[in-house]
Amino acid sequence: MCTGESSGAGVGNGPRERFIREAIALARRARDKGNHPFGALLVRGDEILLRAENTVVSDNDVTRHAELNLVSAASRRFAAETLAECAVYASTEPCAMCTGAIYWAGIGSIVYGCSAQTLGELTGGSLVVPCETILANAKRPVAVRGPVLEEEAKTVHAGFWSRS
Amino acid sequence: MCTGESSGAGVGNGPRERFIREAIALARRARDKGNHPFGALLVRGDEILLRAENTVVSDNDVTRHAELNLVSAASRRFAAETLAECAVYASTEPCAMCTGAIYWAGIGSIVYGCSAQTLGELTGGSLVVPCETILANAKRPVAVRGPVLEEEAKTVHAGFWSRS
Repeated sequence: MCTGESSGAGVGNGPRERFIREAIALARRARDKGNHPFGALLVRGDEILLRAENTVVSDNDVTRHAELNLVSAASRRFAAETLAECAVYASTEPCAMCTGAIYWAGIGSIVYGCSAQTLGELTGGSLVVPCETILANAKRPVAVRGPVLEEEAKTVHAGFWSRS
Repeated sequence: MCTGESSGAGVGNGPRERFIREAIALARRARDKGNHPFGALLVRGDEILLRAENTVVSDNDVTRHAELNLVSAASRRFAAETLAECAVYASTEPCAMCTGAIYWAGIGSIVYGCSAQTLGELTGGSLVVPCETILANAKRPVAVRGPVLEEEAKTVHAGFWSRS
């Protein structure tokens, strides 16, 4: 799921926190639909250009992580110059697959809520690779910031992974 | 592009070499169509279950690597028990994005032609991450074998990256 609504307005303690809260809300919406609890936004400056949810269950496709859905839509819609000015805001630190996708799209930065390590503790830790490990030797720098509001970002996972 | 033809027969110096040669042929076909020169197969035992090409240019989507196309189709089509018995044969070592996708699909092993390091030397090296680095701490083991027929696998890249 990836929608292209554009909205610049919002409330919160600052744009970074506001965008992370919106990514968490998308994660909750994904969970409510029977998908895994992850959401992501594409942001340029103070404007949300795209929103995406995890659709792994509804699409029956393990590649349909929120960030992969986001990057796929962003890549088809925006020019490289625009993507370079964008950040991905993700409710949880992007996995290896999604970090690679963000890199290939030429997106400038990543901001995440819950860290990969914390997610690993919640899920039992399947493939815990911090995105900075993958980007460490990349030719093009990608700025990474997180965790941001990790306690809030964790709440959307409560009781989910123990059920599966 | 991902086609579901099934074919068990073939010629070569062994099944591993035969499958890598077929992945290279798919990479050449992708290049002929104006896409990036990468191809991949899903193999169970001696049977090819799926074939996929890179479609990054034709789909205008940076996520459309051959292996990602392959995993997406495989995930929608086959049960976890089948995927665990499968190998991905890739003309070139899967990138971080594709290695993550292969892991999440529960595919049992990876065999590649040209290594990530050699590809990096050919392309100028943008995001060179050996797939074993990503899989090093994974909870579920994924067997990795390569390079296989690297000199043959390199030929499909000849003159490509210097043009772009």
